[in-house]
Amino acid sequence: MNYLSQYKKKTRKSAKLFSKSKKLHVNGVSHNIRFYEPYPFVVKKSLGKNLIDVDDNKYTDYWMGHWSLILGHGPKKVKDSLKNQIDKSWMYGTVNEQTILLSELISKAVPVAEKIRYVTSGTEATMYAVRLARSVTGKKIIAKIDGGWHGYTSDLLKSVNWPFTESESSGVVNEDQIVSIPYNDLEKSIVILKKYSKSLAGVIIEPVLGGGGCIPAEPDYLKGIQEFCKKNNSLFILDEIVTGFRFRFGCLYPTMKLNPDIVTLGKIVGGGMAIGVICGKKEIMQMADTTGKKKSERSYVGGGTFSANPASMTSGFATLNQLKTKKSIYSKINSLGEFARKEITKVFDGQVAVSGKGSLFMTHFLKNGITEIKNAVDVAKCDSSMLTKYHFKMTAHDGIFFLPGKLGAISDAHTKDDIKKMIKASENL
Amino acid sequence: MNYLSQYKKKTRKSAKLFSKSKKLHVNGVSHNIRFYEPYPFVVKKSLGKNLIDVDDNKYTDYWMGHWSLILGHGPKKVKDSLKNQIDKSWMYGTVNEQTILLSELISKAVPVAEKIRYVTSGTEATMYAVRLARSVTGKKIIAKIDGGWHGYTSDLLKSVNWPFTESESSGVVNEDQIVSIPYNDLEKSIVILKKYSKSLAGVIIEPVLGGGGCIPAEPDYLKGIQEFCKKNNSLFILDEIVTGFRFRFGCLYPTMKLNPDIVTLGKIVGGGMAIGVICGKKEIMQMADTTGKKKSERSYVGGGTFSANPASMTSGFATLNQLKTKKSIYSKINSLGEFARKEITKVFDGQVAVSGKGSLFMTHFLKNGITEIKNAVDVAKCDSSMLTKYHFKMTAHDGIFFLPGKLGAISDAHTKDDIKKMIKASENL
Repeated sequence: MNYLSQYKKKTRKSAKLFSKSKKLHVNGVSHNIRFYEPYPFVVKKSLGKNLIDVDDNKYTDYWMGHWSLILGHGPKKVKDSLKNQIDKSWMYGTVNEQTILLSELISKAVPVAEKIRYVTSGTEATMYAVRLARSVTGKKIIAKIDGGWHGYTSDLLKSVNWPFTESESSGVVNEDQIVSIPYNDLEKSIVILKKYSKSLAGVIIEPVLGGGGCIPAEPDYLKGIQEFCKKNNSLFILDEIVTGFRFRFGCLYPTMKLNPDIVTLGKIVGGGMAIGVICGKKEIMQMADTTGKKKSERSYVGGGTFSANPASMTSGFATLNQLKTKKSIYSKINSLGEFARKEITKVFDGQVAVSGKGSLFMTHFLKNGITEIKNAVDVAKCDSSMLTKYHFKMTAHDGIFFLPGKLGAISDAHTKDDIKKMIKASENL
Repeated sequence: MNYLSQYKKKTRKSAKLFSKSKKLHVNGVSHNIRFYEPYPFVVKKSLGKNLIDVDDNKYTDYWMGHWSLILGHGPKKVKDSLKNQIDKSWMYGTVNEQTILLSELISKAVPVAEKIRYVTSGTEATMYAVRLARSVTGKKIIAKIDGGWHGYTSDLLKSVNWPFTESESSGVVNEDQIVSIPYNDLEKSIVILKKYSKSLAGVIIEPVLGGGGCIPAEPDYLKGIQEFCKKNNSLFILDEIVTGFRFRFGCLYPTMKLNPDIVTLGKIVGGGMAIGVICGKKEIMQMADTTGKKKSERSYVGGGTFSANPASMTSGFATLNQLKTKKSIYSKINSLGEFARKEITKVFDGQVAVSGKGSLFMTHFLKNGITEIKNAVDVAKCDSSMLTKYHFKMTAHDGIFFLPGKLGAISDAHTKDDIKKMIKASENL
């Protein structure tokens, strides 16, 4: 029996429910990437390392809630805190103490977070970050990376997918205010930035390219871009929505001795609840203060009905608090990631490169002369259909779930034995 | 003792906590409007009609979570559902059945919701709505109302506050793609729209101006704008984030026999959890389908890490399900609203106009020759400092909370007796 039949046979209830979902929603989903052929299974609950679908199949999950769930699904202490908070209610619409508690943790761990504002999503956080950059500098152009992904905001929806020159969507009207630079190629990047230096409000970069292929930035690359920004009165913005609190208790940038002006956070710091965070230096965040400033002199930053709601703040605090208390989580998951990268590379014997850092990893089936993965062009040249096939095979046959074609994240709920099983499942593709 | 001293005396713990919050956050808040002088009280829990602050003061709340909490704070059935869902986990990152259940309720109640996509906030929902309009029509200009508020998206951040001609924020780069029309003045609105008809992608309107002053649109105004849109190949978008499921089980627009192309929802349909919804006709929402379309031919709509998360979907479903089962809630809160408007008007004997509809109401202290409130200009000409003073007095002295200067929302947790107490408290301002 092939993997497709195997999948269909074990996900009959999912098939039925998903056909309902297709009637109600565009392509059956509320997030394009959650759809895969023939149809995604429908989840009914999750716990620890596992997703459980409506047909009672159990999957060892490496998608982990868009890489948010560093403690695994529904970790007990976070769950207890959250239920305790739900008892006190999940929405006040006013200032609450939970926000202060979370901010105390973040501001101690993230030096640039001299002032913080919470929003509801990463998309909102990056929108405000670039708005702040434009406000502070009085300039308009924002540079981003070829293959950089900062959410759906119209202000950054450009050059996400190869070949990076086509529009990412119809209906976006300010793409001419965004320029794009090649990742990890300082020389070429500086040539482009120089062209725009007089109008360059800021550069926004993920220190590990996430959706673009799970590729760490070279520290010298980031240093070079930072230096260019400082010299040209442009803000240096790091988008750490994926990387913040992923590799250590804090952001990735201090390990590279960087000094960004703004950092955006999300995912892990919300413990699985909706969150986006803008962290910045005092003099920059001041632009958002409404007291005593005319509208045109300040930057409209932060807010929304759900911003800093007590449920997200509680879930975020409980998660960070656990990470702080038990820092061995990081050495554990980082070394599991290293092990996974090494062993997958071995299994596919020259056919793949496995990119990533710490607990994040992504397999690339080499093609078109590519031998290593340094940027999103290299990723695009690899065989993505093989990756999808590989991931789907594991879902259908081995009860191991990666969102087909995407990177994997290891959580504290995973064990070395899980990784070994995943390696084993990779052997007979 | 004046009201300021009275407030300070009873909110000592709040004062202390808020001074911590000011160190951590710009102006102490994550949403500009949540700050008021001398400092906002800090909430520790909420239940039914009440907010309870850290000094154990209990307030009858008319802010109601940015008007989201139509059943009151932490209603039992929603709470039970939510805790039950938390046990199954609050984030899967995949397709789930809760989304289908919520969409079945919405699609039956909202005729335009032939296809649905969920996002994380209202700001995101309106961003996608106007992107869709631009994608479908191939045109660029979006018209909105003077005083219309559709969240923080750069695509709609213009003409929010009087005099509507100044920039709402520095750092916004596509304001030239937004034009603004006067509310409830069809003739003048059409004159402006005609100028842009060839490039007009769509018009977005709240059927009750929310943040702009709680003012219902005249049905003939909306009909006229809709007619203009249909004739000129522009989309007619209704932002029902405030009004959806607020006055009846469904949207407001069918009661005016309107036929919008897209409707955005939020607030109530998430039951207090983070949500934004784009509802549209099939042929329009099709633009967002990724299957078999080039990037430049489709519209990038929907998504985000937290979109359609099982906690928001459960909380939304439990809320709508209760509203559906017990429709008498609407007749109750609508008539309490009517009572409040009538009695407040009486108390202030010619000094105020109370605008609103159903369970929403807002008091305007008349000034500058204004005698009735038909648009946001009328609101701006009234005495907003009197309104703030009135609201603050009730917070300080009567244990009744309105976000100072903002409109009030009545929930099912309020009784006629509560409204009477609020009227009584209005008597000696």
